[in-house]
Amino acid sequence: MTATEVRVVGFGMGPQHVTPEAAAALAECDYALAVAKGADDPLLAVRQAVCDAHGVELVVVPDPERDRSPGLDRVGYEGAVADWYAARLAAYRTVLDSRGGTCAFLVWGDPSLYDGTIRIVRALGVGFDVLPGISAPQALAARHGIVLHEVGQPVHVTTARRLRADVGLGQRNLVVMLTSGVDLDGFEDWSIWWGANLGGTGERLVAGLVGDVVAEIGAARAAAKAEAGWVMDLFLLRGPADGAA
Amino acid sequence: MTATEVRVVGFGMGPQHVTPEAAAALAECDYALAVAKGADDPLLAVRQAVCDAHGVELVVVPDPERDRSPGLDRVGYEGAVADWYAARLAAYRTVLDSRGGTCAFLVWGDPSLYDGTIRIVRALGVGFDVLPGISAPQALAARHGIVLHEVGQPVHVTTARRLRADVGLGQRNLVVMLTSGVDLDGFEDWSIWWGANLGGTGERLVAGLVGDVVAEIGAARAAAKAEAGWVMDLFLLRGPADGAA
Repeated sequence: MTATEVRVVGFGMGPQHVTPEAAAALAECDYALAVAKGADDPLLAVRQAVCDAHGVELVVVPDPERDRSPGLDRVGYEGAVADWYAARLAAYRTVLDSRGGTCAFLVWGDPSLYDGTIRIVRALGVGFDVLPGISAPQALAARHGIVLHEVGQPVHVTTARRLRADVGLGQRNLVVMLTSGVDLDGFEDWSIWWGANLGGTGERLVAGLVGDVVAEIGAARAAAKAEAGWVMDLFLLRGPADGAA
Repeated sequence: MTATEVRVVGFGMGPQHVTPEAAAALAECDYALAVAKGADDPLLAVRQAVCDAHGVELVVVPDPERDRSPGLDRVGYEGAVADWYAARLAAYRTVLDSRGGTCAFLVWGDPSLYDGTIRIVRALGVGFDVLPGISAPQALAARHGIVLHEVGQPVHVTTARRLRADVGLGQRNLVVMLTSGVDLDGFEDWSIWWGANLGGTGERLVAGLVGDVVAEIGAARAAAKAEAGWVMDLFLLRGPADGAA
């Protein structure tokens, strides 16, 4: 373990969600580090706003190139991802080694849900702590004025890729993240609470029976993307009250 | 709907988690309302600290008496709960009607998980909005420096009462809330990340294989309660990596 220390700071959806605990951690950092996926990476702008609000310098590391050739087979794809991951780690390490001091890694939402920062920091082998931030499912529930589960019942937090498998295993109340469009064929009698770009430019909310609102969600998703230039959405999906699928 | 408005404010584990968004909402409230379960209700002290930090008056309503006679049958028990719930609603309504203005309902953790405030506010029939707060599962993950799920996998958030049923349905990565002691017989080869009184007096953390640390957790839980006078705990429980139960 080197002398460098990292503070992993969840900042929710933006400066409005930076807790006093997170603000104090930022104030103790010498700089913050972020990867830019392009010149106008929208999440970079939010990170810059957080740093500006707390007087912390933001050091931007260009995201390493990744081989996205369509002809790659599975082994080639996994190799490309591994190379890219190693290059990103090396880029971080170069900054940490040259700057020294304490570095903030700024995480959109909360570091505990579908975010790779903690894994990366562990791979760097540096000492670190974590400050929690408002997660997207909480922001979704707040905007809709709902609780994420029925009284005494569970909430299953999962990915769009796993949705149908988890429903097949009996789950009937799911928060679905890592979406890329909403494919809800067969869920017409389920209830949905959907949101995009929560707390940011292009925010949209739709709720109702899937069969009634799925077209509205598609239009709202397109409108969010048109307004912000990007879209990140998620939803809560709940089976019919009578238990019939 | 009356002119009274309610703002449901999640304050996480205490003043250190009050977001700028929540602070702005508190500043716009004329007062905050809290139920006291007794003269030295520990969660009342945290609410008072939040109000003091933001210059909001805290109005305390004594929790109505509930018939807890051990001889009550199921019908009698449900009747006692319904009476108590109606009395609590009436007590809130009396304050809202007599004070007018805008009232903050302060919620420990986040209003979207295992909290009855939104249901109560809906029953009051007043206009309201919700400000999210840091939830206990996020605080647990942050303190342990972990992500709540394995890469691309789900996290199932449930109650201690439902734990064995949910495991029976195939869940192998669970955040368990509403605990009252930890009963983990049969989970000896599962991994646990446990915490009590997170971010407050008596905080304790234990992690490891259940079979190795279950006694340590029992002792830590007792120590947390001895130090703070109360204990609230939760844990993440994850099945063995090889898939064998």
